[in-house]
Amino acid sequence: MTGKILVIHGPNLNLLGRREPEVYGTATLEELNGGLVAYAKTRGAELRIVQLNAEGAIIEALHEAMTWADGVILNPGAYTHYSLAIYDAVLACGLRTVEVHLSNIYAREEFRRHSVIAPACIGQICGFGPTSYRLALDALLDQ
Amino acid sequence: MTGKILVIHGPNLNLLGRREPEVYGTATLEELNGGLVAYAKTRGAELRIVQLNAEGAIIEALHEAMTWADGVILNPGAYTHYSLAIYDAVLACGLRTVEVHLSNIYAREEFRRHSVIAPACIGQICGFGPTSYRLALDALLDQ
Amino acid sequence: MTGKILVIHGPNLNLLGRREPEVYGTATLEELNGGLVAYAKTRGAELRIVQLNAEGAIIEALHEAMTWADGVILNPGAYTHYSLAIYDAVLACGLRTVEVHLSNIYAREEFRRHSVIAPACIGQICGFGPTSYRLALDALLDQ
Amino acid sequence: MTGKILVIHGPNLNLLGRREPEVYGTATLEELNGGLVAYAKTRGAELRIVQLNAEGAIIEALHEAMTWADGVILNPGAYTHYSLAIYDAVLACGLRTVEVHLSNIYAREEFRRHSVIAPACIGQICGFGPTSYRLALDALLDQ
Amino acid sequence: MTGKILVIHGPNLNLLGRREPEVYGTATLEELNGGLVAYAKTRGAELRIVQLNAEGAIIEALHEAMTWADGVILNPGAYTHYSLAIYDAVLACGLRTVEVHLSNIYAREEFRRHSVIAPACIGQICGFGPTSYRLALDALLDQ
Amino acid sequence: MTGKILVIHGPNLNLLGRREPEVYGTATLEELNGGLVAYAKTRGAELRIVQLNAEGAIIEALHEAMTWADGVILNPGAYTHYSLAIYDAVLACGLRTVEVHLSNIYAREEFRRHSVIAPACIGQICGFGPTSYRLALDALLDQ
Amino acid sequence: MTGKILVIHGPNLNLLGRREPEVYGTATLEELNGGLVAYAKTRGAELRIVQLNAEGAIIEALHEAMTWADGVILNPGAYTHYSLAIYDAVLACGLRTVEVHLSNIYAREEFRRHSVIAPACIGQICGFGPTSYRLALDALLDQ
Amino acid sequence: MTGKILVIHGPNLNLLGRREPEVYGTATLEELNGGLVAYAKTRGAELRIVQLNAEGAIIEALHEAMTWADGVILNPGAYTHYSLAIYDAVLACGLRTVEVHLSNIYAREEFRRHSVIAPACIGQICGFGPTSYRLALDALLDQ
Amino acid sequence: MTGKILVIHGPNLNLLGRREPEVYGTATLEELNGGLVAYAKTRGAELRIVQLNAEGAIIEALHEAMTWADGVILNPGAYTHYSLAIYDAVLACGLRTVEVHLSNIYAREEFRRHSVIAPACIGQICGFGPTSYRLALDALLDQ
Amino acid sequence: MTGKILVIHGPNLNLLGRREPEVYGTATLEELNGGLVAYAKTRGAELRIVQLNAEGAIIEALHEAMTWADGVILNPGAYTHYSLAIYDAVLACGLRTVEVHLSNIYAREEFRRHSVIAPACIGQICGFGPTSYRLALDALLDQ
Amino acid sequence: MTGKILVIHGPNLNLLGRREPEVYGTATLEELNGGLVAYAKTRGAELRIVQLNAEGAIIEALHEAMTWADGVILNPGAYTHYSLAIYDAVLACGLRTVEVHLSNIYAREEFRRHSVIAPACIGQICGFGPTSYRLALDALLDQ
Amino acid sequence: MTGKILVIHGPNLNLLGRREPEVYGTATLEELNGGLVAYAKTRGAELRIVQLNAEGAIIEALHEAMTWADGVILNPGAYTHYSLAIYDAVLACGLRTVEVHLSNIYAREEFRRHSVIAPACIGQICGFGPTSYRLALDALLDQ
Repeated sequence: MTGKILVIHGPNLNLLGRREPEVYGTATLEELNGGLVAYAKTRGAELRIVQLNAEGAIIEALHEAMTWADGVILNPGAYTHYSLAIYDAVLACGLRTVEVHLSNIYAREEFRRHSVIAPACIGQICGFGPTSYRLALDALLDQ
Repeated sequence: MTGKILVIHGPNLNLLGRREPEVYGTATLEELNGGLVAYAKTRGAELRIVQLNAEGAIIEALHEAMTWADGVILNPGAYTHYSLAIYDAVLACGLRTVEVHLSNIYAREEFRRHSVIAPACIGQICGFGPTSYRLALDALLDQ
Repeated sequence: MTGKILVIHGPNLNLLGRREPEVYGTATLEELNGGLVAYAKTRGAELRIVQLNAEGAIIEALHEAMTWADGVILNPGAYTHYSLAIYDAVLACGLRTVEVHLSNIYAREEFRRHSVIAPACIGQICGFGPTSYRLALDALLDQ
Repeated sequence: MTGKILVIHGPNLNLLGRREPEVYGTATLEELNGGLVAYAKTRGAELRIVQLNAEGAIIEALHEAMTWADGVILNPGAYTHYSLAIYDAVLACGLRTVEVHLSNIYAREEFRRHSVIAPACIGQICGFGPTSYRLALDALLDQ
Repeated sequence: MTGKILVIHGPNLNLLGRREPEVYGTATLEELNGGLVAYAKTRGAELRIVQLNAEGAIIEALHEAMTWADGVILNPGAYTHYSLAIYDAVLACGLRTVEVHLSNIYAREEFRRHSVIAPACIGQICGFGPTSYRLALDALLDQ
Repeated sequence: MTGKILVIHGPNLNLLGRREPEVYGTATLEELNGGLVAYAKTRGAELRIVQLNAEGAIIEALHEAMTWADGVILNPGAYTHYSLAIYDAVLACGLRTVEVHLSNIYAREEFRRHSVIAPACIGQICGFGPTSYRLALDALLDQ
Repeated sequence: MTGKILVIHGPNLNLLGRREPEVYGTATLEELNGGLVAYAKTRGAELRIVQLNAEGAIIEALHEAMTWADGVILNPGAYTHYSLAIYDAVLACGLRTVEVHLSNIYAREEFRRHSVIAPACIGQICGFGPTSYRLALDALLDQ
Repeated sequence: MTGKILVIHGPNLNLLGRREPEVYGTATLEELNGGLVAYAKTRGAELRIVQLNAEGAIIEALHEAMTWADGVILNPGAYTHYSLAIYDAVLACGLRTVEVHLSNIYAREEFRRHSVIAPACIGQICGFGPTSYRLALDALLDQ
Repeated sequence: MTGKILVIHGPNLNLLGRREPEVYGTATLEELNGGLVAYAKTRGAELRIVQLNAEGAIIEALHEAMTWADGVILNPGAYTHYSLAIYDAVLACGLRTVEVHLSNIYAREEFRRHSVIAPACIGQICGFGPTSYRLALDALLDQ
Repeated sequence: MTGKILVIHGPNLNLLGRREPEVYGTATLEELNGGLVAYAKTRGAELRIVQLNAEGAIIEALHEAMTWADGVILNPGAYTHYSLAIYDAVLACGLRTVEVHLSNIYAREEFRRHSVIAPACIGQICGFGPTSYRLALDALLDQ
Repeated sequence: MTGKILVIHGPNLNLLGRREPEVYGTATLEELNGGLVAYAKTRGAELRIVQLNAEGAIIEALHEAMTWADGVILNPGAYTHYSLAIYDAVLACGLRTVEVHLSNIYAREEFRRHSVIAPACIGQICGFGPTSYRLALDALLDQ
Repeated sequence: MTGKILVIHGPNLNLLGRREPEVYGTATLEELNGGLVAYAKTRGAELRIVQLNAEGAIIEALHEAMTWADGVILNPGAYTHYSLAIYDAVLACGLRTVEVHLSNIYAREEFRRHSVIAPACIGQICGFGPTSYRLALDALLDQ
């Protein structure tokens, strides 16, 4: 895998660091992205990172990536639990996609325990804060 | 019915022909639209066709059609299964609407077997590929 | 497709026109059949039409059609919602079958929203009154 | 509370007065807003009012309000029943939010009886037409 | 009401008296019918009584009664719990129908506690053995 | 059976005739009771009739009847659907009890279709207005 | 509306201020009532206030109000979640009724998220502590 | 046990060998029956074999067997999953009955995993193709 | 713990010894109470014992005990399974409460297997007949 | 098939003959095994028989059999209803496996009606006491 | 009862005192056992105490106790909620068994509220810490 | 974190490489372990690796690790979906634990989509074959 990776941060992740820090930690999205880009460089991978609150925009980012990306790191935020349209988009774009979450979604509200998108992905990583993204990058590059 | 019809292709349908051809066939959306426009002409109907990935955009297309359209052909894609906001929009716009699907949604994943939008429509047609749209046009014009 | 089509009207459809006209309209089954035969003639198709109240009789009509028919238009009436034996018969006979309904079954009682037979069909058309049948004929001939 | 309040009208509320008047009444959104602004003035409150059909836009309106608003009056329309992303946005923005509905959502279709957003709000008011908004304003100012 | 009544005994009721007497009693169907006819005579009512094991036959008996009967006493046997086609037939025939059961269906297996046919009837009587039928006759004549 | 019968009218039945007449008819409870007493006299039965809104009072009326009554006619009103304590009281008192309803509870709101009390009774009669009570009396005397 | 209002505090509300203050606040029921009466005076409304722990007593309070009240403010306490008999009483009395709750019932135990009484009311207000009652009064007077 | 056995093949089994051979094998019903009769002869048993597509006919075959049969081998086909009337017939006829299936119904569609008839039988055998019938015969003769 | 204990026997327990002795035994409530009082004396505890059939009365007994009792032994009878108002009362009164049952509620009808009150208690004891109460007394005094 | 068969008796089957004889019969496991070995000899098959109470031991017995066995007769006892690990073991070992039960599991407690292991087997036989095992042996050898 | 009692501590109870002390307290299993043995001596009972993490070992301990024990005190730990094999073992061994829990399982995670083993026991005691065991001993000796 | 890690391979994982290679790949467990140990060395971590088919053994391995391990990598195999006892053991041992799976459990049978153990872990990684373990090691060391 040559390593052009699209990273999609879903809804409300722009508030990272300010939003419920006891759940999501105190690092901001900028800090998370900075660390991830630095790590990608050590792995020879190239990232494009977007933060998108709109379901339709996430779908279109996946479509657009078909022309250039080798893989996708996708944190769908709350869309995880009901956006069948994003599930279809992952299937339709045909890109190897890893679903990530900062928190352990299985240790929170009941509704967070079910992902409708995961069946379209190659795998899922959750619970490790910003490290979840780095592990997803490794997964895409090394598996 | 005089025959001004809005056709809405929902999320991911822009990838038609490239996306899972074993399910959706190999015709592209352009080819589908071309055939549909040609058929409409033979029926004396006038079509406006949009492809929209965003739920909000579909809602607004339905609102806008209140001023000019006589009916709607709506393929809500995956929104079929959860977009109560589109259901409300169909009810609110008051236009005769036919829900269409390319594939037989009753012969696929369990979640595709339930449409939250169909109760607001006058009818539903699914399973006939691009022909589904042509039948929907006939349904609007002839019933 | 050469166009020998079996049309099956399921239970209680013999009362069409007399039964709940606000749901099913005022046209009788004879009128519906007359219009359908006339239309089939314009399409070069040949119809055999039966109205059957018994589940077993519908199963046997499907079996018998294996020797001569090119397709089936099936309105299973209330059997739609529980007759797994008819589902099996559609699968077993191997004929391309379209499920039709006069009314929009998704806008009525909750139990009418689920068809156990649709997964065995190539598609489903509902909500357009007698026109549903004509569209089904077109679907069989043209798809 | 000093009283800078964001009012969000969700999807399809732009059609108010034209849409299903037996459910939603005959007052238009403009009339509703006019009355609400006038009342707010008597209470010394300042309103910003938006009508948004897109889920992502509602999320971003909530984010943006973090810099200036003291509270939010939110009518999520049909998103009430499935938009976990708006639920997350209400939690994330940290603003005191009141969920309002024009109609009594507990006396309509079954699906309208469950709000996924209400747990993130301080309270809910429904069933009083345009008065629901005025009561929500009082609730934010007086509680 | 002039009192021409169709009595339908559903599946397996021909075995009455021989079948599980601890549930259904020891009187045979002939004895039950004899007593019922005698009682009807005292009431000035005229009965036609059939015992039918086939769902389709019950449907057709209901259709046929449209031309002569003033009411129906219907014991659907086990069809009570799933025959939506008989439910439709009761609705379609438009005759005042009373559902009866020999045993108290609410004190037996779980599946017997739900009747899909009762919503189409004017009422239901169960638990009184052959007396259930006599009460149903009174209900039709006197209400 | 000698025929001392307790008749219990459950909650809200005191409003009979004034309450939702399209469901419950226009006869008052006094009229219903008058007709029932008159009929009982012709059958040689003796009635004691109470109307009770409180669950505990219904339970105690059943207990008290153990010393004198031969049977019970019980219309539990809305308690039908959840009062397991009345269910226990019917079992505990050991009296032959018939559950009655004025309306056909199977043709109304979903929640009215399930009786938790019926399994403790000998039978159930519903849908015949005041006649339901008279039939219940016959059932107790004649079965 | 002339403004004679019955206020019903349901079970356990007599303990207000002593009971789980982190949920219900520290104001006592007397304080709540005092504030509400004072406010009603400013609105020209006349209140009768009762606190009732028994379901049957709540039903009878609603019946009794038919002769004098113009509306009802009803906090059914835990009966909210199962008392179909109170639901029937609200329907039967025909008075415009507002359901209120001190706490946001949608942010607590799962069982508190469903009201069986709300469908019979004109609306529901919850989450604003004693202010909920004042808003309900405004709703009754102003809508 | 003297060994007069009724064998009932349910709906669609007449198509055996032609229908979905990857599920049901390529042997025809005639071949299956031939092998079964030959085996029965070696066991000193006498078979009557019927294939019936109608639920009512299966019920009546069971009734009729009460006069002569010692046991029943019953393949209810798709009726397995909903025909409570056949369940009642097996109970009512009082004959020792073995439910058989050619395929392993537990390894197919979800709906095939539940038999409503099995509780009335002495046992169930599935998954062994035509051998299932032979094993059922042994079970009836040897247990 | 000083040992002033309120004992509440719920609905129908006044019939103990006469009611379904195969489930509840032959000892009367008086005998049970006598034995319990005698045992309490040996433990230096003081009991007040009530038997209450009305839900509201049980709630008020719990309220009243707040002024004098150190703990409560509560047999809610059938209210166990639905009285959220008693659950609230146990929480609200703040007294250490033990739920007891004479029979093993987990070995009876399905509906008896779920207690809505137990989460508000410190523990539950069931299945040991009158001994259940004595163990509850020990639990309150010794834990 | 050459006929080396592993027979696994699951948990509690060592108590056969002593445990609930009205369900499981009076023959001991030794007697069952003796009869089965004798029968196997007549069929030219060789058996290894184990009785194992531990889920892990059953899994390892299946693994070990991969090196020598041609098939497996498996009575998983109560593990039938939840041991997905045994289901996986059957799939993983790749041996043709028949699930057997002494009793008709479909005529007992509700929880016994669902096998999580059956989908991994070639078939299931239940209800014939020790004969179930002999039939399973025939099924493995003859199918 | 002569008083030979088997005490089984299920999985993870060896960690008592170290494991989640806010739920289970700070006493170790040794301390609990010591207190229990001392108490048993005062009652003239003889205990054998085991702590077992394996489901199969618990089953075999129950089997082994058939030869010597008069009763069983069983804390199945998390097996409470799914081990149907232990349920069967309790039934099969025929020993009077009391299910105990240290914590009030009805006030914790949802999954802990259902015991599959309790229906096979004579009763259940939970919520009293180590005292639960002492009460269970009394229950076995005194009931 | 100093890096002493326990790796637990759950049931059936000893068959890796031989078992369903289309799901689990062709690498054996030895190869997986070899690669993992080599990688751990580069990270300065020390592994102890066990493969355990028995639930009780997994529980005890977790207990034993309390004395030496800094973290756990746990692949519970099929126990993932029901072993509440392992869930308790993870909670009780207090070690930071990562749940791993070779396959994407969300893209397989329905029952594999729910982990009862994940809520006790710090996170979950699935879908990346042997790489899942290496990522889990990184997660433990780096987060």
